[in-house]
Amino acid sequence: MTERFDLYYWPGLQGRGEFPRLVLEAAEAPYRDMARLDETEGGGVPAMMAILETGIGGRIPFAPPFLVENGKLVAQAAEVSAWLGERLGLAPTGEADRLFARTIALTTADLVAEAHDTHHPVGTGLYYEDQKPEALRRATEFRRERMPKFLGWYERLLMANGSGFLAGDRLTYADLGLFQIVEGLRYAFPRRMAAIETDYRRVLALRDRVAGDPPIARYLASPRRIPFNEDGIFRRYPELDGD
Amino acid sequence: MTERFDLYYWPGLQGRGEFPRLVLEAAEAPYRDMARLDETEGGGVPAMMAILETGIGGRIPFAPPFLVENGKLVAQAAEVSAWLGERLGLAPTGEADRLFARTIALTTADLVAEAHDTHHPVGTGLYYEDQKPEALRRATEFRRERMPKFLGWYERLLMANGSGFLAGDRLTYADLGLFQIVEGLRYAFPRRMAAIETDYRRVLALRDRVAGDPPIARYLASPRRIPFNEDGIFRRYPELDGD
Repeated sequence: MTERFDLYYWPGLQGRGEFPRLVLEAAEAPYRDMARLDETEGGGVPAMMAILETGIGGRIPFAPPFLVENGKLVAQAAEVSAWLGERLGLAPTGEADRLFARTIALTTADLVAEAHDTHHPVGTGLYYEDQKPEALRRATEFRRERMPKFLGWYERLLMANGSGFLAGDRLTYADLGLFQIVEGLRYAFPRRMAAIETDYRRVLALRDRVAGDPPIARYLASPRRIPFNEDGIFRRYPELDGD
Repeated sequence: MTERFDLYYWPGLQGRGEFPRLVLEAAEAPYRDMARLDETEGGGVPAMMAILETGIGGRIPFAPPFLVENGKLVAQAAEVSAWLGERLGLAPTGEADRLFARTIALTTADLVAEAHDTHHPVGTGLYYEDQKPEALRRATEFRRERMPKFLGWYERLLMANGSGFLAGDRLTYADLGLFQIVEGLRYAFPRRMAAIETDYRRVLALRDRVAGDPPIARYLASPRRIPFNEDGIFRRYPELDGD
């Protein structure tokens, strides 16, 4: 049986779905982006909502993104990315590195949650406009304390590893995740990134290397790559940015 | 070579370290709680800080908890718990369930982060006292919207699975995580839990089953179980609780 991956995520935004999507694209794997597919082909948001309601074989995801393959369901962006990476040759080969790549992906997921909370510090159920004072404080903390801490950690990993990749000696889903982080931070916090990003030259070199990977370059130029926008995790609200 | 697990986490609080600790205890695995060990035995906070600085074999964790075994390093509470559970017989046996248990553990980690942010909605670098108005709003959202959503999801999983466990048909690290969630929510939000917890009778039954598991019961009665306190993730600030 030919493997085929069905990825489920909200249409119209990159969000957390972009992390597994980048792995599928880098591997040139056969996949369907289900919620963006027409309802006549079994796709659309209703198909996604049905799985959120009843699951697959009693396994119910808490939220998108999730992936279905051959009756198995995996949710959580970091877990889907790791599982796909290990299946599709985008994971380290050695055991210790394979394990550590998972640690990196989960830490990246934490950074994504913190980036999200810069515009939703009170709750996802409320509009940004209804939590602006809190967002201004949280975004300031995020820019000043968290961005350098996370970016500095990736930089130290690259320095310690020495191969130009975060774990092992080839491109993995951990690197694809860092690419997306740099792109997202540049979109959401252009002034802050302009002020600090040159401190992380190994991170930027890896970002460029991923962007130049032929399948990824083709993907980024395709309509499959949804532009960043203010429905996603990384949102450009100028009042939340600063040096 | 006999396996031995070295767990590193801040001493004096349960925090995120409690998730892997519960797995080690339930499996009665040989482990050392390194930061609580005397410095003359190679433990203490300085030993932990040294690994946060330089890593193990170039693999540097972002934050505790992390686990070291035979030269390998794993960080992130959900990943450490999953890795230990799969090693120590506290994971589902079937492939689809093994995979889904990881999804559950990562979702539990998201809930833990949200519980943390009820008292630190602006940033971890600031005192609770310096973010009280934001904490009041976030905690209200958490109690009203997020607690029922997460607890309701676990309840649906238990209903769909039917074995009394979250994944597969035996006790796993996913169940241990849910036990800790119930304990933590009861500690931090006693009024809210009293008001809603009977809606989740399968969750409560699993909590009781875990508490009665002999190795866990022995652990909970031992000095190794640190009491909940206001340095941890789940903090009892009466002003953040409510029906």
